[in-house]
Amino acid sequence: MIQPTHKIRVAILGATGAVGQRFFSLLSDHPWFEVVAVTGSDRSIGRRFSDAVNWILPGQLPDLAERLTVQPNESDLGGAGLVFSALPSRVAAEAEPRLASRGVVVCSNASAHRMDDDVPLLIPEINPDHLALVRHQRRARGWGGMIVTSPNCATTGLIFPLKALQQSFGVAAVHVVTMQAISGAGYPGVPAADILDNVLPHIPGEEEKLETEPVKLLGAASEQEIKPAPIAISAQTHRVPVTDGHLLAFSVRLGTSASLEEVEEALHNWRGPSAVADLPSAPSMPMEYLADPDRPQPRLDRNLRAGMTVSVGRLRPCPVLDFRMISLVHNTLRGAASGAILNAEFLVAQGYLEPTTTGPVASAP
Amino acid sequence: MIQPTHKIRVAILGATGAVGQRFFSLLSDHPWFEVVAVTGSDRSIGRRFSDAVNWILPGQLPDLAERLTVQPNESDLGGAGLVFSALPSRVAAEAEPRLASRGVVVCSNASAHRMDDDVPLLIPEINPDHLALVRHQRRARGWGGMIVTSPNCATTGLIFPLKALQQSFGVAAVHVVTMQAISGAGYPGVPAADILDNVLPHIPGEEEKLETEPVKLLGAASEQEIKPAPIAISAQTHRVPVTDGHLLAFSVRLGTSASLEEVEEALHNWRGPSAVADLPSAPSMPMEYLADPDRPQPRLDRNLRAGMTVSVGRLRPCPVLDFRMISLVHNTLRGAASGAILNAEFLVAQGYLEPTTTGPVASAP
Amino acid sequence: MIQPTHKIRVAILGATGAVGQRFFSLLSDHPWFEVVAVTGSDRSIGRRFSDAVNWILPGQLPDLAERLTVQPNESDLGGAGLVFSALPSRVAAEAEPRLASRGVVVCSNASAHRMDDDVPLLIPEINPDHLALVRHQRRARGWGGMIVTSPNCATTGLIFPLKALQQSFGVAAVHVVTMQAISGAGYPGVPAADILDNVLPHIPGEEEKLETEPVKLLGAASEQEIKPAPIAISAQTHRVPVTDGHLLAFSVRLGTSASLEEVEEALHNWRGPSAVADLPSAPSMPMEYLADPDRPQPRLDRNLRAGMTVSVGRLRPCPVLDFRMISLVHNTLRGAASGAILNAEFLVAQGYLEPTTTGPVASAP
Amino acid sequence: MIQPTHKIRVAILGATGAVGQRFFSLLSDHPWFEVVAVTGSDRSIGRRFSDAVNWILPGQLPDLAERLTVQPNESDLGGAGLVFSALPSRVAAEAEPRLASRGVVVCSNASAHRMDDDVPLLIPEINPDHLALVRHQRRARGWGGMIVTSPNCATTGLIFPLKALQQSFGVAAVHVVTMQAISGAGYPGVPAADILDNVLPHIPGEEEKLETEPVKLLGAASEQEIKPAPIAISAQTHRVPVTDGHLLAFSVRLGTSASLEEVEEALHNWRGPSAVADLPSAPSMPMEYLADPDRPQPRLDRNLRAGMTVSVGRLRPCPVLDFRMISLVHNTLRGAASGAILNAEFLVAQGYLEPTTTGPVASAP
Repeated sequence: MIQPTHKIRVAILGATGAVGQRFFSLLSDHPWFEVVAVTGSDRSIGRRFSDAVNWILPGQLPDLAERLTVQPNESDLGGAGLVFSALPSRVAAEAEPRLASRGVVVCSNASAHRMDDDVPLLIPEINPDHLALVRHQRRARGWGGMIVTSPNCATTGLIFPLKALQQSFGVAAVHVVTMQAISGAGYPGVPAADILDNVLPHIPGEEEKLETEPVKLLGAASEQEIKPAPIAISAQTHRVPVTDGHLLAFSVRLGTSASLEEVEEALHNWRGPSAVADLPSAPSMPMEYLADPDRPQPRLDRNLRAGMTVSVGRLRPCPVLDFRMISLVHNTLRGAASGAILNAEFLVAQGYLEPTTTGPVASAP
Repeated sequence: MIQPTHKIRVAILGATGAVGQRFFSLLSDHPWFEVVAVTGSDRSIGRRFSDAVNWILPGQLPDLAERLTVQPNESDLGGAGLVFSALPSRVAAEAEPRLASRGVVVCSNASAHRMDDDVPLLIPEINPDHLALVRHQRRARGWGGMIVTSPNCATTGLIFPLKALQQSFGVAAVHVVTMQAISGAGYPGVPAADILDNVLPHIPGEEEKLETEPVKLLGAASEQEIKPAPIAISAQTHRVPVTDGHLLAFSVRLGTSASLEEVEEALHNWRGPSAVADLPSAPSMPMEYLADPDRPQPRLDRNLRAGMTVSVGRLRPCPVLDFRMISLVHNTLRGAASGAILNAEFLVAQGYLEPTTTGPVASAP
Repeated sequence: MIQPTHKIRVAILGATGAVGQRFFSLLSDHPWFEVVAVTGSDRSIGRRFSDAVNWILPGQLPDLAERLTVQPNESDLGGAGLVFSALPSRVAAEAEPRLASRGVVVCSNASAHRMDDDVPLLIPEINPDHLALVRHQRRARGWGGMIVTSPNCATTGLIFPLKALQQSFGVAAVHVVTMQAISGAGYPGVPAADILDNVLPHIPGEEEKLETEPVKLLGAASEQEIKPAPIAISAQTHRVPVTDGHLLAFSVRLGTSASLEEVEEALHNWRGPSAVADLPSAPSMPMEYLADPDRPQPRLDRNLRAGMTVSVGRLRPCPVLDFRMISLVHNTLRGAASGAILNAEFLVAQGYLEPTTTGPVASAP
Repeated sequence: MIQPTHKIRVAILGATGAVGQRFFSLLSDHPWFEVVAVTGSDRSIGRRFSDAVNWILPGQLPDLAERLTVQPNESDLGGAGLVFSALPSRVAAEAEPRLASRGVVVCSNASAHRMDDDVPLLIPEINPDHLALVRHQRRARGWGGMIVTSPNCATTGLIFPLKALQQSFGVAAVHVVTMQAISGAGYPGVPAADILDNVLPHIPGEEEKLETEPVKLLGAASEQEIKPAPIAISAQTHRVPVTDGHLLAFSVRLGTSASLEEVEEALHNWRGPSAVADLPSAPSMPMEYLADPDRPQPRLDRNLRAGMTVSVGRLRPCPVLDFRMISLVHNTLRGAASGAILNAEFLVAQGYLEPTTTGPVASAP
């Protein structure tokens, strides 16, 4: 593992939004990264970040916010060679490739390029080998930089147990129903008038993501593409009156038959690759099976290991498919900002980023 | 249809509880029934109902509460020949048969006897023919009265669309995930500390009910038993921070293939038997398909037609089974008190109850 | 009392908003009024109302919505001579006087003109004599129409008990703290991210209204102005996670000394003028004192008499001022749409409106 | 300041309850204290703590719970000489004096003895001199141990700003309205059916505490008693749908006149005695004035400095009294468990506890 010898200069795109604020909060005190620039919408450009942002996270705005001025996405970003993108998808669609062509490494939480053939959709513990796709990406597009994306927040809650099951038994089909926190909708996001004493049964675009992203994440990587895993997924997504933490109830049909004990063991023992475990944001366990019959619960378990552990529980046989269970992910930490930061740490450790004082230049190992 | 010529004297068992209060509220102003007795726990026996009850429903306690004294379940119940049972299941297990043996007609919302071979689990619009089972029940048990039960609240939300699909295409399998209101847990029920900003993924006993009751409700009635419908059901139940209204997200595998249009038409056009439509508590439509892509929602749709209409929406093909959709039921109205009252009305209309001033005697038509 | 012999043609300004929808819902089935036009923002002009509105009220959109097209505020409003204004205050500031100058009677829920010297701030049960101010308004401004306003929703919850106390004892000072429902902020209004598991201690502009409007409402009317009542009011306003119903906790210093019994009697017996009681939207009791020690509560009591009764409770001596108590008002019914409709009914009954088929012409009685 | 040279053996009374769990969580990793015993109700006695407790706090139950067995209050408590009491008040009434007479130092969060003449109601930053009262307590009662109490959670939120104002200007009267979190009611506490989409305007006994405890806390200590501060307090208390954090809106009449700037400065600059600042649980600032116009808010500010800082905001002149403002306290941390732990640390630092391996013996300095 490569460790940076001095702090890497980074920028946050879309820093005033809900996920952008999470990035800012996490990166303002990060051992490897130093925030040197933040971008925002036209309205906030030129203002001090502390004035432009309507800080919605618990606790105080980091002092760093006093010292940064909001820039446009097209600026030089303080010479940052690594950027974290919390841009709206339609803005990310153009802004991210433009930055990559300028030599910048983009770790994006936006959905715009997740399903592009040559863009890795990455979770280091799930599909570290997919990262190699960026060589093809950079060569084919002629980019000095690159785009690496992290998946949708609900996908992240599903993919850890699916990965463990796929490795042990194969997975043929998944039927998943989600109960998602309101923070997943950004800010201002869901009006209180819509969600108090209510459940919203429709999250535009969410079901498509949940039905396609896992298939890419679990797919087999070749040099130039990812072969989708042959898994049928049916997703029904809902918004519930919960601040943070997406809960998923799902059933799976396995590729081979297995006993309840074998499945529980597979979930219990899964750890992910050891190369990841030493990264600053990596939890000691990326997934944990909770044996209590009424866990995980959003309020009680979302912050497990700084919100980086996906918790799983209530494993039982399914009368329709093979097995059913539930899982929980902190949607703005593991499922968004922290997940993208872990991706960046993985890039650094794997030698994809070369830190310099004037900003890192992406290097192909 | 038989209409009563004067009001039938009825009693409410377990009247101080959450469902008991719904019974009291609905029956205090009912065209056919007159509440002459209420029962409650040892603590409340002998007290005026208005003093014994901790009224938790919106609005004022009906004046009738001033004129009734809480009695034990073993009393003469003011000569009532028809009782509505909102007893806890363990109490109902013994109290209901004892009353039936004394000649009383018991319309029960308790789960104790729902799955008894000779006890109808009844929704008049779904399985009116099951009611005939009570002849066998009374003969075999030597009862002057009878027990007729209404299903679990979540079952009620599932059974209407299932019935429509079964009639048109057959149903082979169902995978259902529920998001249930806190009123379904009775009172005091769920502690606020457990459910605020949270989802509870475990409702003890609920999944078993949801996997077995629909199979009985959709089963074929013979003279002495109900042959269960051959449907595999997988249920995952959750409690969400919603006051009233259970939302269900489910997928079905049909018995025969059908197009999306055919399925939507089947849901849209289903009405239920006309014999039921004239009962005082029957809604003009027991099920309604809502075409808006984000409906039904608990807060907006639970009170549709006095909470007696189950609403269905979001019908789409399912990549794993055949079709998926959502449904919503008001759990303490259609799914509990109003449902049991509709059952009683149906018994009267079908001639199973003979009103007299001293209390009705059950009669076998 | 004058009763209209045929329905009066009315329009709703700002009909797509939260209060506008309440107007539409209430007026689509009103015995005296017929909605012939609705207005909305630029975005919705020219669209069918059923398409333009994002209906957020429980239940179905009234059928009438299919037959109306959204118009600009400057249109002829279908010949309506009476309009209900749910306009944003900055829009109302200019639009309402323009309509009044064109001969239209404006019953406004907007705050823009509430404190204008010659505009009545009216609640028929509180200050019916203030209505006479419109003669001066019309004469001075040369208007054929007029503007009559209804107060802020929280003011409405405070003013009923204050009026009863003022009549019996005089009121010298009030210290009030509010806990207000999110529907008071309109739609989309408060983001869920701001209010779930939270209380917002600042509602811009609200405290000023609550400190000034009651003083006008309780003031003495002369021909040309209202002399403010000499009452010092201190208001602290908060938003709480409640859908509907503003709760107010307040203490008063009376003008003369009184016993607890006398104060309770004054609250208990207060009725308002009998001339109002026969109006279609008038409740049999505009204020009710609830004796239970834990009432009123928003969810249980907000809908009392169709949301038109302000409920009061928990009267006790105050160690700092004289007496303290709480009150509750349904903020979008009595506190907004229903209140303005009652004003219009009062105008009709008092002869201020002359219904014609082509639209009423305002007449000075 | 005296620092313990090795860990002091402590017990938690009522450890399975809501506040008891907070004690357990905080003390399982405390630099000075070691939990050697826990007590619980009859039902749980003899069971392993991990089995007996229904853990309701976020995160996992500390491992220590596996190694402790629930004991009765009358046991030897593992030789602990210091106990933290989270007992219900009626149990504490007898159990705490019994323990004190046996030589045990009781730091109690129960209300039973708070207002006893010879029992300190202590917050180290507010009234450290009151602690001296225990000498009289022990002498008069012949106790080897002692009882020291910490105040009600809402009182704690009020007392910090009051203390700052009292020191600078004197305080003559306070009118306070609270919006309190459901965790203040313990577990199971408030039924969800009572508080979802609602506000409860009555918390039995709470207003009395809030009107009497501050007067003792701000009183002048002599050797044998506390002379109550001459402050009139009027309290109206409410339960709101918030998990943690009590918000208080209040107005004060000062003893001497002051400008807004002077009052803000007094709040801004107040620090508390320096002797306290080095205790392990003491925050760097026990009170912080937040200048943002919409702060403090429960969800955003309750965890300020591990929930030990009371935050204050929205200072403005009051048209009825002199000044008004709001304050926020984390009710189960500073307002309960952490507050009592800070008291115990203060006792140790002041030499009131003599740590030994067999359990500390209380010593009179």
